[in-house]
Amino acid sequence: MFPAPDHPVELRELPLPELADGEALLAVECSEVCGTDVHLHRGRLAGVPYPLIPGHVAAGTLAKVRGDLRCVAGAPLQEGDRVTFLDVHRTCHRCWYCLVAKASTRCPERKVYGITYGAADGLCGGWSDYVHLLAGTRLIRLGNSTARDFLRGGCSLPTALHGLQRAQVQIGDSVLVLGIGPVGLSCIALARAAGAANVLAIGGPPNRVANALSMGADEVLVLSALPDDARARWVYERTHGRGADVVLEATGAPQAVVQAMRCARDAGRVVVIGQYTDHGEVAFNPHADLNKKHLDVLGCWGSDYSHFHRAVQVTGDARLGAPWRSLSVQEFALADAAAALAAVANGAVSKALLLP
Amino acid sequence: MFPAPDHPVELRELPLPELADGEALLAVECSEVCGTDVHLHRGRLAGVPYPLIPGHVAAGTLAKVRGDLRCVAGAPLQEGDRVTFLDVHRTCHRCWYCLVAKASTRCPERKVYGITYGAADGLCGGWSDYVHLLAGTRLIRLGNSTARDFLRGGCSLPTALHGLQRAQVQIGDSVLVLGIGPVGLSCIALARAAGAANVLAIGGPPNRVANALSMGADEVLVLSALPDDARARWVYERTHGRGADVVLEATGAPQAVVQAMRCARDAGRVVVIGQYTDHGEVAFNPHADLNKKHLDVLGCWGSDYSHFHRAVQVTGDARLGAPWRSLSVQEFALADAAAALAAVANGAVSKALLLP
Amino acid sequence: MFPAPDHPVELRELPLPELADGEALLAVECSEVCGTDVHLHRGRLAGVPYPLIPGHVAAGTLAKVRGDLRCVAGAPLQEGDRVTFLDVHRTCHRCWYCLVAKASTRCPERKVYGITYGAADGLCGGWSDYVHLLAGTRLIRLGNSTARDFLRGGCSLPTALHGLQRAQVQIGDSVLVLGIGPVGLSCIALARAAGAANVLAIGGPPNRVANALSMGADEVLVLSALPDDARARWVYERTHGRGADVVLEATGAPQAVVQAMRCARDAGRVVVIGQYTDHGEVAFNPHADLNKKHLDVLGCWGSDYSHFHRAVQVTGDARLGAPWRSLSVQEFALADAAAALAAVANGAVSKALLLP
Amino acid sequence: MFPAPDHPVELRELPLPELADGEALLAVECSEVCGTDVHLHRGRLAGVPYPLIPGHVAAGTLAKVRGDLRCVAGAPLQEGDRVTFLDVHRTCHRCWYCLVAKASTRCPERKVYGITYGAADGLCGGWSDYVHLLAGTRLIRLGNSTARDFLRGGCSLPTALHGLQRAQVQIGDSVLVLGIGPVGLSCIALARAAGAANVLAIGGPPNRVANALSMGADEVLVLSALPDDARARWVYERTHGRGADVVLEATGAPQAVVQAMRCARDAGRVVVIGQYTDHGEVAFNPHADLNKKHLDVLGCWGSDYSHFHRAVQVTGDARLGAPWRSLSVQEFALADAAAALAAVANGAVSKALLLP
Repeated sequence: MFPAPDHPVELRELPLPELADGEALLAVECSEVCGTDVHLHRGRLAGVPYPLIPGHVAAGTLAKVRGDLRCVAGAPLQEGDRVTFLDVHRTCHRCWYCLVAKASTRCPERKVYGITYGAADGLCGGWSDYVHLLAGTRLIRLGNSTARDFLRGGCSLPTALHGLQRAQVQIGDSVLVLGIGPVGLSCIALARAAGAANVLAIGGPPNRVANALSMGADEVLVLSALPDDARARWVYERTHGRGADVVLEATGAPQAVVQAMRCARDAGRVVVIGQYTDHGEVAFNPHADLNKKHLDVLGCWGSDYSHFHRAVQVTGDARLGAPWRSLSVQEFALADAAAALAAVANGAVSKALLLP
Repeated sequence: MFPAPDHPVELRELPLPELADGEALLAVECSEVCGTDVHLHRGRLAGVPYPLIPGHVAAGTLAKVRGDLRCVAGAPLQEGDRVTFLDVHRTCHRCWYCLVAKASTRCPERKVYGITYGAADGLCGGWSDYVHLLAGTRLIRLGNSTARDFLRGGCSLPTALHGLQRAQVQIGDSVLVLGIGPVGLSCIALARAAGAANVLAIGGPPNRVANALSMGADEVLVLSALPDDARARWVYERTHGRGADVVLEATGAPQAVVQAMRCARDAGRVVVIGQYTDHGEVAFNPHADLNKKHLDVLGCWGSDYSHFHRAVQVTGDARLGAPWRSLSVQEFALADAAAALAAVANGAVSKALLLP
Repeated sequence: MFPAPDHPVELRELPLPELADGEALLAVECSEVCGTDVHLHRGRLAGVPYPLIPGHVAAGTLAKVRGDLRCVAGAPLQEGDRVTFLDVHRTCHRCWYCLVAKASTRCPERKVYGITYGAADGLCGGWSDYVHLLAGTRLIRLGNSTARDFLRGGCSLPTALHGLQRAQVQIGDSVLVLGIGPVGLSCIALARAAGAANVLAIGGPPNRVANALSMGADEVLVLSALPDDARARWVYERTHGRGADVVLEATGAPQAVVQAMRCARDAGRVVVIGQYTDHGEVAFNPHADLNKKHLDVLGCWGSDYSHFHRAVQVTGDARLGAPWRSLSVQEFALADAAAALAAVANGAVSKALLLP
Repeated sequence: MFPAPDHPVELRELPLPELADGEALLAVECSEVCGTDVHLHRGRLAGVPYPLIPGHVAAGTLAKVRGDLRCVAGAPLQEGDRVTFLDVHRTCHRCWYCLVAKASTRCPERKVYGITYGAADGLCGGWSDYVHLLAGTRLIRLGNSTARDFLRGGCSLPTALHGLQRAQVQIGDSVLVLGIGPVGLSCIALARAAGAANVLAIGGPPNRVANALSMGADEVLVLSALPDDARARWVYERTHGRGADVVLEATGAPQAVVQAMRCARDAGRVVVIGQYTDHGEVAFNPHADLNKKHLDVLGCWGSDYSHFHRAVQVTGDARLGAPWRSLSVQEFALADAAAALAAVANGAVSKALLLP
């Protein structure tokens, strides 16, 4: 766990919880180390209740079930069932955002396992042998997906599915993905799955390029290979001089949002998925970059049950899930979480799986 | 006419044109002085072929018709018919933007009367007794609308209709309009017409506030009354602490685009209509202003035939057109165009009509 | 109450309930008699647990509150607060329809006060001095609306709001409403509120025509005045020979759905709101009525919290709510429920309010 | 050519046309025999100007060009260039449907090569050595596509692309295609390309099942294998008991439209593409099939330039075009057009190509 911001990762023994009605205990088979965990470790997110058991997404087997738990199909969930769960708990379904705006990812009651639930709340993170699944947690059967395969997509896949839903890619479109970390890689494969004819990617470091190509990118530009302006030209040369029909920003760098606007064609769409933490301001030109371009620029925050549901579908599907199964990821024992975290932090791997 | 950038307005006698097949001559009854004319006079737009006869929107009577001209209903247009015309001529309907993207306002062949047609092209501006309507110009019967009433909306009404189309206001929404010049005023009335329950406006100068209220704003904040941050608070206090469901930016000031994002509710919509000229860059925070807000930010450029068509419908409609008929505008003789231009430039009037 | 299908209405004394945590008791100020009540009385709906306390929509004052109840704005609800409630209770927010399809009106767990909750479930209908509001019922503050004014819209207003949301009326559109019962009347006013330039209605009986005009219809054709084919012609003559941009079907008669398709313009939209009970089949021509017309035909079932929320907003709004306040309705004492039901059943009134 | 309805196909020698400015002559490399040709041969379409040179879609090489012809990218077209053309000529771009409704497939001026242009208009059909391309015809470079590969999709591919655009398939959706003729087969491959996880098809005759599977269907039900009701059950068993998220009707049989509604899940989408000719009426239940299901039923008529443009992109794309290249089609010499027509009419082949 993370005892406090910028402190070394610790392994601790905690008691198993008493389950209340509607609760369950998940025996974790696989969880992941993602970029959010790196931010959490460094204390970059506001409102995090340290000490924290990280790992917002995990999958495994129901070790104990108390009461009547059901999947969305209405079938009862039982001990021994292989499941994952929506990391977002307690969107209230009774506030204005949930009920009128129908934007549950902006519900103020939203609680997230491994991020806004701390160790004081119990075993509420995936870097653990067991996760305490509180009442109301949405469970999803893994079906054809294995825990490992689902975690290869991990938290980035529902995030990317939400982004693609907003992007409305049409068959034959050109799609540019900025960033080739886990979210960018999932965006590449999903853009392909949605019918893009031409998928371009810009990102780094260079060791991730092979991943981007195996996920389905036609061409990848290493970020360091060209200066800013030349990158837009690189895109225009590959899109009939117009820019990409759709740009998916998945980098975390504020200037990438402006780059996304400049690389999109007039009357195209930009989906901003990568700005999960505050890295400050960036300047843009509202006339040239937005109004005259008649552009759609769409922020995309978090994901909801539907995106997790489809993520399980995708990773369990023989054809749709193939890109993620081909993705090289590194596996670590739970005891080596610190090493896994370091490998993600320094970019040595794009995704690390933790196996208890 | 404008002989050259920053030169005094001149009145010149020019010969009436010989009409080719498919052309017509419009006897102007009314044209307008808009903000674009102020920019044109000062030489702020690129690619303008001075000397220029300004006035991109005008209405009047067909003085001569050569060949078979028809309105969209297929009925022939004849001498004596009262019409206006789509100021945008020659969107090619054969380029990728016209035919595949279906974004004709981004057609590179686009020519605009009074802006990109100069005096060398003939009588191609509305500040004139006659306008030479070239073949392929889309003519619209005024129907129940008078030329004067149509010009009270003028170029700002189709622009605002396009903005409202992108905004998708729902019955009961709160709408914030930034800017209370002609486009902002039309946005206020249209937001009301589209079912908004609560229409707020921020703008200036103070002499326009009465106009904004008469167009249907519930409350108007004078721009100079509060500093930037306090303005957002003013909006939040009037929208249940959430921000407006829809924000329509119609100001011309880059910082208003950022203000628009900050005044919109999470998962709301911002339509950027006001950035028609390049006033430079502005800084924003992609994390806080866009991604985390799950916002739609939509640039909206120009207008097409459908917006002009509906503009004539609106101004001619007893109920929908009422706000524009109540709008105080100032009328000038064509010979006083310089005075009309000065009145618009210094904000003394929000709209000036020119009557030959 | 309705003791059984086709039995006389009875007035019975029932004990007040013990409230469990999260429950409340509503002192009814006003409820309504709607078409559904007529169907329920005649036993035309499947799965209704007679005996039944009818009245799915009601408004009044919270007489007792047990536990922490809150409105969507998060503010606590207290005894003495004036509220209405979403008649649909127990959409589960955990099934595939609620969570993946996001179509909660098709949730199989859905329970409706006064329809699928019977007297055995307690005081779960509005034709009563008190309604027992079960835990999880969504309460809405009446705000500027009075109970009577809200009930003038009643159940038909959220239904119509849902229909209008699907119809996507644009400013200047022509809208045809089929049916001038309560739902049709609300559709007329909402089409107007959404910016329609031309609102036509076809319906009967003749005594409702004045209502349709006062709600904002430009012209009303009495159903019996013209045969079927001539009615379509009547619409075409008023819509430039094209048919209406949007047709809202709100009749209950299967043949009206086909009429709606025939009265819509090519590439227009038809929203089917009126087929709440099964009146059998009707024949149409898929080539001529649907495919060649490039038509959108959209079924619209029930309403959710957002529609009730906006309904309260609309009826409480000085401007938007005006049509419903002008609507002539008849008020009955609770003891005269049988007379009220008869008046609705025979079309003497379009809407009857019940006042305990 | 077809001299008259129900007359034998004839081969005739006609003079090559004099080209006017803006016109071109296409040396046909490949054209096709589609279901429309069978209908035309039997005289089933209204308003066809016999004698007729059939073949609305064809591809080849520009043998002569007169004047300045350009592709959508603005590059000049020259003799020797390999092209196809949009079969729909003369959508007027000046009527209400073209300009306000933006529904050019419903333009009343629409003329179609090989269908509404007869032999009296010149060499205006593809079953010919040459096609006279009139001024204003939209030409599309074949690029990476060969004429034969493009014609394997032929007229059915743009039709299906239009249908898929309306269907808005999401990644992970289940899609049911009714009909496995050329349009149905293209729908299967496009549903797959758009991200469907599960593509089901129902159709016949049995010899086409292999085609449907090679295009990407997961399972195909032969129409004759099960009675009507049992077919819906077959779909429900394969879609978690809910019905398909999207149903694409591509059969021509009126009852298939009702079957489509019954096989779609609640709140799903049905796109009706197959009703190009009038086969009479069919009965449905508006309550059970449409309103209570909260269904979108969308007619889809014809195609426009954008669909042809994307069709060329798809067939020329290594990955997206693979299904069509794997499709077994039969090739005939122009002189054997009668045999080709017979083969299509009796279902022996699903698509016949004609090679001059």
